Amino acid sequence: MATFADIGVAAGMNILFAVAFLVAFAILRLQPINDRVYFPKWYLKGLRSSPMHQGSFVSKFVNLDWRSYIRFLNWVPDALRMPEPELIDHAGLDSAVYLRIYLLGLKIFVPVALLSWAILVPVNWTNNTLAKSEATDELQYSDIDKLSISNIPNGSLRFWTHIVMAYAFTFWTCYTLRNEYAKIATMRLHFLASERRRPDQFTVLVRNVPPDPDESVSESVEHFFLVNHPDHYLTHQVVINANKLAKLVKEKKSKQNWLDYYQLKYSRNQSRRPVTKTGFLGLCGETVDAIDYKTAEIERLTKEIAEERERVKTDPKCIMPAAFVSFRTRWGAAVCAQTEQSRNPTLWLTEWAPEPRDIYWDNLAIPYVSLSIRRLIIAVAFFFLIFFFTIPVTFVQSLANIEGIRRRAPFLKAIIDIPFIKSVIQGFLPGIALKIFLVLLPTILMIMSKFEGFMSVSALERRSATRYYIFNFVNVFLVSVIAGSAFQQLDSFLHQSANYIPRTIGVAIPMKATFFITYVMVDGWAGVAGEILRLKPLIFFHLKNFFLVKTEKDREEAMDPGSIGFNTGEPQIQLYFLLGLVYAVVTPVFLPFILVFFTLAYVVFRHQIINVYNQEYESAAAFWPDVHGRIIFALVFSQLVLMGLMSTKGAAQSTPFLIALPVLTIWFHIFCKGRYEPAFVRNPLQEAMMKDTLERAREPNLNLKSYLRNAYIHPIFKNDDDDNEDEHIDEKIEENVLVPTKRRSRRNTPVPSKYSGTSSPSLPDVAPENPGS
Amino acid sequence: MATFADIGVAAGMNILFAVAFLVAFAILRLQPINDRVYFPKWYLKGLRSSPMHQGSFVSKFVNLDWRSYIRFLNWVPDALRMPEPELIDHAGLDSAVYLRIYLLGLKIFVPVALLSWAILVPVNWTNNTLAKSEATDELQYSDIDKLSISNIPNGSLRFWTHIVMAYAFTFWTCYTLRNEYAKIATMRLHFLASERRRPDQFTVLVRNVPPDPDESVSESVEHFFLVNHPDHYLTHQVVINANKLAKLVKEKKSKQNWLDYYQLKYSRNQSRRPVTKTGFLGLCGETVDAIDYKTAEIERLTKEIAEERERVKTDPKCIMPAAFVSFRTRWGAAVCAQTEQSRNPTLWLTEWAPEPRDIYWDNLAIPYVSLSIRRLIIAVAFFFLIFFFTIPVTFVQSLANIEGIRRRAPFLKAIIDIPFIKSVIQGFLPGIALKIFLVLLPTILMIMSKFEGFMSVSALERRSATRYYIFNFVNVFLVSVIAGSAFQQLDSFLHQSANYIPRTIGVAIPMKATFFITYVMVDGWAGVAGEILRLKPLIFFHLKNFFLVKTEKDREEAMDPGSIGFNTGEPQIQLYFLLGLVYAVVTPVFLPFILVFFTLAYVVFRHQIINVYNQEYESAAAFWPDVHGRIIFALVFSQLVLMGLMSTKGAAQSTPFLIALPVLTIWFHIFCKGRYEPAFVRNPLQEAMMKDTLERAREPNLNLKSYLRNAYIHPIFKNDDDDNEDEHIDEKIEENVLVPTKRRSRRNTPVPSKYSGTSSPSLPDVAPENPGS
Repeated sequence: MATFADIGVAAGMNILFAVAFLVAFAILRLQPINDRVYFPKWYLKGLRSSPMHQGSFVSKFVNLDWRSYIRFLNWVPDALRMPEPELIDHAGLDSAVYLRIYLLGLKIFVPVALLSWAILVPVNWTNNTLAKSEATDELQYSDIDKLSISNIPNGSLRFWTHIVMAYAFTFWTCYTLRNEYAKIATMRLHFLASERRRPDQFTVLVRNVPPDPDESVSESVEHFFLVNHPDHYLTHQVVINANKLAKLVKEKKSKQNWLDYYQLKYSRNQSRRPVTKTGFLGLCGETVDAIDYKTAEIERLTKEIAEERERVKTDPKCIMPAAFVSFRTRWGAAVCAQTEQSRNPTLWLTEWAPEPRDIYWDNLAIPYVSLSIRRLIIAVAFFFLIFFFTIPVTFVQSLANIEGIRRRAPFLKAIIDIPFIKSVIQGFLPGIALKIFLVLLPTILMIMSKFEGFMSVSALERRSATRYYIFNFVNVFLVSVIAGSAFQQLDSFLHQSANYIPRTIGVAIPMKATFFITYVMVDGWAGVAGEILRLKPLIFFHLKNFFLVKTEKDREEAMDPGSIGFNTGEPQIQLYFLLGLVYAVVTPVFLPFILVFFTLAYVVFRHQIINVYNQEYESAAAFWPDVHGRIIFALVFSQLVLMGLMSTKGAAQSTPFLIALPVLTIWFHIFCKGRYEPAFVRNPLQEAMMKDTLERAREPNLNLKSYLRNAYIHPIFKNDDDDNEDEHIDEKIEENVLVPTKRRSRRNTPVPSKYSGTSSPSLPDVAPENPGS
Repeated sequence: MATFADIGVAAGMNILFAVAFLVAFAILRLQPINDRVYFPKWYLKGLRSSPMHQGSFVSKFVNLDWRSYIRFLNWVPDALRMPEPELIDHAGLDSAVYLRIYLLGLKIFVPVALLSWAILVPVNWTNNTLAKSEATDELQYSDIDKLSISNIPNGSLRFWTHIVMAYAFTFWTCYTLRNEYAKIATMRLHFLASERRRPDQFTVLVRNVPPDPDESVSESVEHFFLVNHPDHYLTHQVVINANKLAKLVKEKKSKQNWLDYYQLKYSRNQSRRPVTKTGFLGLCGETVDAIDYKTAEIERLTKEIAEERERVKTDPKCIMPAAFVSFRTRWGAAVCAQTEQSRNPTLWLTEWAPEPRDIYWDNLAIPYVSLSIRRLIIAVAFFFLIFFFTIPVTFVQSLANIEGIRRRAPFLKAIIDIPFIKSVIQGFLPGIALKIFLVLLPTILMIMSKFEGFMSVSALERRSATRYYIFNFVNVFLVSVIAGSAFQQLDSFLHQSANYIPRTIGVAIPMKATFFITYVMVDGWAGVAGEILRLKPLIFFHLKNFFLVKTEKDREEAMDPGSIGFNTGEPQIQLYFLLGLVYAVVTPVFLPFILVFFTLAYVVFRHQIINVYNQEYESAAAFWPDVHGRIIFALVFSQLVLMGLMSTKGAAQSTPFLIALPVLTIWFHIFCKGRYEPAFVRNPLQEAMMKDTLERAREPNLNLKSYLRNAYIHPIFKNDDDDNEDEHIDEKIEENVLVPTKRRSRRNTPVPSKYSGTSSPSLPDVAPENPGS
């Protein structure tokens, strides 16, 4: 049991870390050499030029202006200054709504914290249960416990305060959640209604086109929609399986990078031509001249790519039974996306086409039966991942301990016995095995989601986020609360009665308060402050800059702006919601730590979204129902835990009062689901019709067909025309300048999305060829 | 523990009962006087005239033809003879598919029974565990137990046979279920596609029309659909709140019946004019001349009805914010029903309009928030109904026992002490309290569903069926398996661990086999045979015939054909599926009893559907997903129970093999849900377009507007024109004669649906007035 002093020391250390990170950031961001690391978003938007072009040699790399150091904290007001509508224009609705999650945390927990400090802390403090039990017993207690529910004697009437507070907190949380859901639904509809013409407004993705012996997929699609949507069908674009081509292009790019590196190396030191080996990773095999070898390789690949490109365009096997079907009006597309087409509900599946850059092309051709089998496999695999992931980790750990190494590799004995090496192995290796697994976890979850067959990057990230949350809940929260691995818990929960489980957790909760306070400070305070420092991109940028960069274009590609990373970020925030709601009634001391986290994270991520992160797709806040649902889950969980705790506290007569809480909360969730969720899933016809009518009045002669012709071709075919595209992009971007600036655009390449390569949704009229027809 | 002999006696008795019922039925149905009781369906279709019109006086009432008594069982082949397509024409798809539930039972259990008798019975029989334990222990056992899994020694390798069989049965059940789902989906689509033009194909029910200060509901609806479905909107019909009017009309009808009764009484005995009392139920109050009094009452009501009718038509308060909107094409209606109209997803809710006679008019105007609160209330109420229903029953029982009566009503002491009265009270009263509750249960459940706000009778019945099944499962099945009331079980399940619950049930299952065998015989065999006798309608018909009937029309109204009663019938069948699946592996002796039930019930209900039941609505087998889901639930439950049983049998190493079964079964359910369920929920555009095109080619000049004008007016306004309607109805019916007949139609009144009164969907062009516009 930690005392206030212990907590104070931990808090001091973490505040020190956080401040150190923030100061380091404040200094590093002012150096011109780091400009592309800390302001990549502005480069990507073409609104910032490198400050390395003007001034003396030294001032190109180091900021010598002492005045700017004085104002080293002024990024905070800068980050907060941009109003929300401008933020939506600048970084998209997804980012703006993502920030609102932190705001929601503040909205929920500021009144909750005030109320619980005003009422619960005095109620808890003015008892002496713990002092008494210490006097008679050997029980250790701390000042923090004196402020918590543990200090109330068994069966005391004071527990009614906690029950009333549980009602008040539940009511307040639900009220805030409802307001937020309504607000975000309105924002989403407004965003969808006020945005410019986009190809996905007119387009529907059709999957599982049935094979027809007499017709090609393209003909089959055309006939089907001409018959069943005669007044609305406009055109379509079949999906081509260009996965192999994409792989070849990627390989070529990597070889090109190596070639650049060797050429740069040679140009710096002309005395010796660089060499490489032909085998695996350049580590084994014959030694050859690196530049010649890579050049030959690239030539071979170029030829192969050209061949593959021809094959893909002509071979009917590469045409997948899926197509993007475009309609004359938004109304027609809305109708087709929401209705069932065929009497066999697994054929002619229609759904809104995702944004072109949001599409995950590899999954477009999975048939229905395969999809449902994949879902089963992943469900089983995920179950094992949650409950048995400790097995391989433990195995690695058992290999990596001193005795294990000594037994398996006796020849290392001499080295191991050096005290320093020994302590490193004992102290670090077991932790590292677990750490590596946890670092790999988001990737593993993303691979699982991809295997499951989702069509768009946003859906992949949402599914991964759900899985990550479940993993966190079981393997971070529950494992910390009740000692023992997840599997041991599963086993003991199976053998415990249903009303004993919340009791087990409930009893453990107050005892773990100090642990979670430390967790919040390490992961929440220092971790968030570390995020703004961007140490990894900083190092990688300078390494690339030194070894690879020759042109401005290379330098741009060396930037790694990153993205919000919904699949890892959101589940972490949710853990704080869970902790806050669980501890709100039990240990009110906990709440200020959560508040500091939400405030800090809000400021930091607002800064990052404005200045750093690249928006990879725009799903118009489609993730909000997930966020809402998980907070509701945390709320219900906290109520069950409180019930369990109360029943051990001799306040069992309160159970009937508490049982109404989860019932009402779940009902509230169902109500919200019906009232607001459709706005995130379907597109109302009224809106579509309104936009159609407006557009018809404004642009009666619009040639929609040519506008849509190339919107949905595979990005690999768009890359062909990078060079001609550039000027168009610049034009487009200058049209859309939203934040006034005096700087000229210097952007050279479009920003690649992490998954689908380059693909600019606003550029349908530049790529000249249409491989689908 | 019952022996074979005990079972034999019980079987013999129940067979005797069943045969007695069947013989009584065979004799009664041949009497002309009962013709309307046993063949009402044919009267309703207008295809049968009363045999009482020809022949001598005696032969009008009693069948004197001895030859017909010899062939007294020939209703069985008659019932089986009608082919399924004809049955669908005759009694609707709902009835035909309902019969297929029994067939499905046979399809599943015949191979299962054969396999288990061929393999499991020998495997169980050739052990001597029970004989041994009897020798050493005091354990009683019977021959039936020797055939069950109880006879296998603990930890025996023979349990692998049971595991393999569990896989085989699961596989076979799923295979059969899938085939059946596919078949019924096809039947439904074929039925919907091949049926004649019906108003509901073109019509969508719109609810929650937002109030508009400047426009009436009718104008608001028209403008909204003219704007948002400009090419497809045709006309609409606002919903009028005529509940009060309907109540008045009903009251008038009841008074009219009494008047008829008194007039008949007076005409038979002219010496004394009948008198009645004006108070409650004619039991108290002033004594008056009955005929004059009722005539005056009817006159008053007639006036009130006329006033109310005027008020309803003009008062804007009676217009509810709901409307039936009709479209030019089926395609337009399909689109509108499946899409979201407004940005607020709780306004302008659209769904397929039910058939006119399927509509439950009272619920059309419930707003969204009220609906979701009602759902919460009913969910809580249903929970209490399931787990606490014994409290009022026990209370009544405690009042109704000897000691209770003696204490509370000492003046009855003399009567109670008569031995005969005493034994009656002791033997019957407690049972009667429970029985009355169980008889009332379907009505209570139906009231709950009505309160919940469903729009159509079919939906009400489906929801009631689900509730009834849950009630049966908890309060019949579980309560029988584990002694103790449902509430005691809930309590003990809350205090038991999750893996102990299936074990508790699993251990009890084999011991209860004989109880359930008796249950099947009493409820299944004798009960079904009793159904065909129709004792209650028989008595009521003759009573009405004697006291009320004056004209042919009255006699027709005195018929009570009844209906399938999906809300009570289907949950009962499901109980047999549950029992069959649970006992298939454990006690194979059970299966033949189930098979007899399914065979007998199939024949009986086929006969009833052909000759008796009146089809109240046609939902085109919309209930099948429920049926499928409940069988899947029974399958998963049986697998869990088997796992529990195995783990107590020293065969715990089999758990990993068995755990795959529920996982695979649930996956199968999800697969089927995705693959087939949409066919029961949505209407594919392809089908709609096909029918539209055909119709346009066949009848290019169809005046759809006049066809649809009066389809969806409240039945109360249609009744006005009963007399003019009749001839049209006859015409229509003769067009649609499907079963060849030589008899002339004698039908005089249309058949009222139990809930919504008369409303003939095929009669849109006869009612001249349109109260909605």
